[in-house]
Amino acid sequence: MTSAHGTAGARASRGPGRRPGQTETREAILGAARELFAEKGYDGASLRAIARAAGVDPALVHHFFGNKEGVFVEAMRFPIDPSVLLPHILAAPRERRGETIARVFLGVWEDPGRRPPLLAMLRSAMTNERAAALLREFIGSALFARAGAATDVPQLRLQAAAGQMIGLMILRYVVRVEPLASASEDELVELVAPVLQSYLG
Amino acid sequence: MTSAHGTAGARASRGPGRRPGQTETREAILGAARELFAEKGYDGASLRAIARAAGVDPALVHHFFGNKEGVFVEAMRFPIDPSVLLPHILAAPRERRGETIARVFLGVWEDPGRRPPLLAMLRSAMTNERAAALLREFIGSALFARAGAATDVPQLRLQAAAGQMIGLMILRYVVRVEPLASASEDELVELVAPVLQSYLG
Repeated sequence: MTSAHGTAGARASRGPGRRPGQTETREAILGAARELFAEKGYDGASLRAIARAAGVDPALVHHFFGNKEGVFVEAMRFPIDPSVLLPHILAAPRERRGETIARVFLGVWEDPGRRPPLLAMLRSAMTNERAAALLREFIGSALFARAGAATDVPQLRLQAAAGQMIGLMILRYVVRVEPLASASEDELVELVAPVLQSYLG
Repeated sequence: MTSAHGTAGARASRGPGRRPGQTETREAILGAARELFAEKGYDGASLRAIARAAGVDPALVHHFFGNKEGVFVEAMRFPIDPSVLLPHILAAPRERRGETIARVFLGVWEDPGRRPPLLAMLRSAMTNERAAALLREFIGSALFARAGAATDVPQLRLQAAAGQMIGLMILRYVVRVEPLASASEDELVELVAPVLQSYLG
């Protein structure tokens, strides 16, 4: 799908999928997806319906985003893709699952490029019912349902583990209480790995 | 300090400290306290300075609010008073501390009258740096420092436990993900008591 029509100037500024026409199509799909996810929730908005609302072929949505989760991740600027992270977590030995999850999760949050959108998402969900509904749909359907299906961990325990990490990140990055705000990533892994292991191991 | 000058009508609508002049004085003190806490933080704002800014005698601040923590709790409409809850928690046998804390904490959050101000406070802290600074000062100085001094639990473990409960309440009451949103108080105690015990026991 790459083409040879780009000039040197256009080429210098383009990354993958950044050709002018592509950017507009992507944005049209994401705009339609945000509308539909907000209106119908994650489960109610099909990839086909998103394509129809954006006036493009469903194959093009697949081409840009892979699947519905991929569209959602981009539409929400959600910087965690469960379909990438979960296999990595499940590949770890069961007795090291707590530590693996702590490292994966903290790795995302400690990344200065990925933390702001996560905080923005949490902030939106805290103050806007639509954003909360989107987050609920997404983590319910894409994250917890998938993790539950791949393991024998009850939903309530998955959610308690997620609550642990969300609350810890709020105290570290939003409230910025010490010593938590200045603790190293390793200290945090040591702190929460046993708890995650007790919920999910 | 009660007086006989209230009419039957005034009497019907007044609770403790709700006499007209008292209400205004209380509000003046709380307004001055919010300004000073926001400007100087919890530690930097003395009860004496608050009284001075409100144009009242420090004894009157003591009379209305007991101590600086009491002023802060009211100024932030903080519906948890650590000086009331902590002795209750510390009175429990050490091996039941996790369960006691879970019950005390959930008891506050499950109370429909006390949950809204807690959510409001979290929302403010998520979106407003001043509110975050106030919360940081308060939980740092009044809650964690006090709990740390009364026990031998390191601050980082206290904060991880607080993170667990804050995150759980956000997923339950803000994101409202199921089954967490509909779980009973007893189910939640059973879920988190072992974790709180492992951090704080």
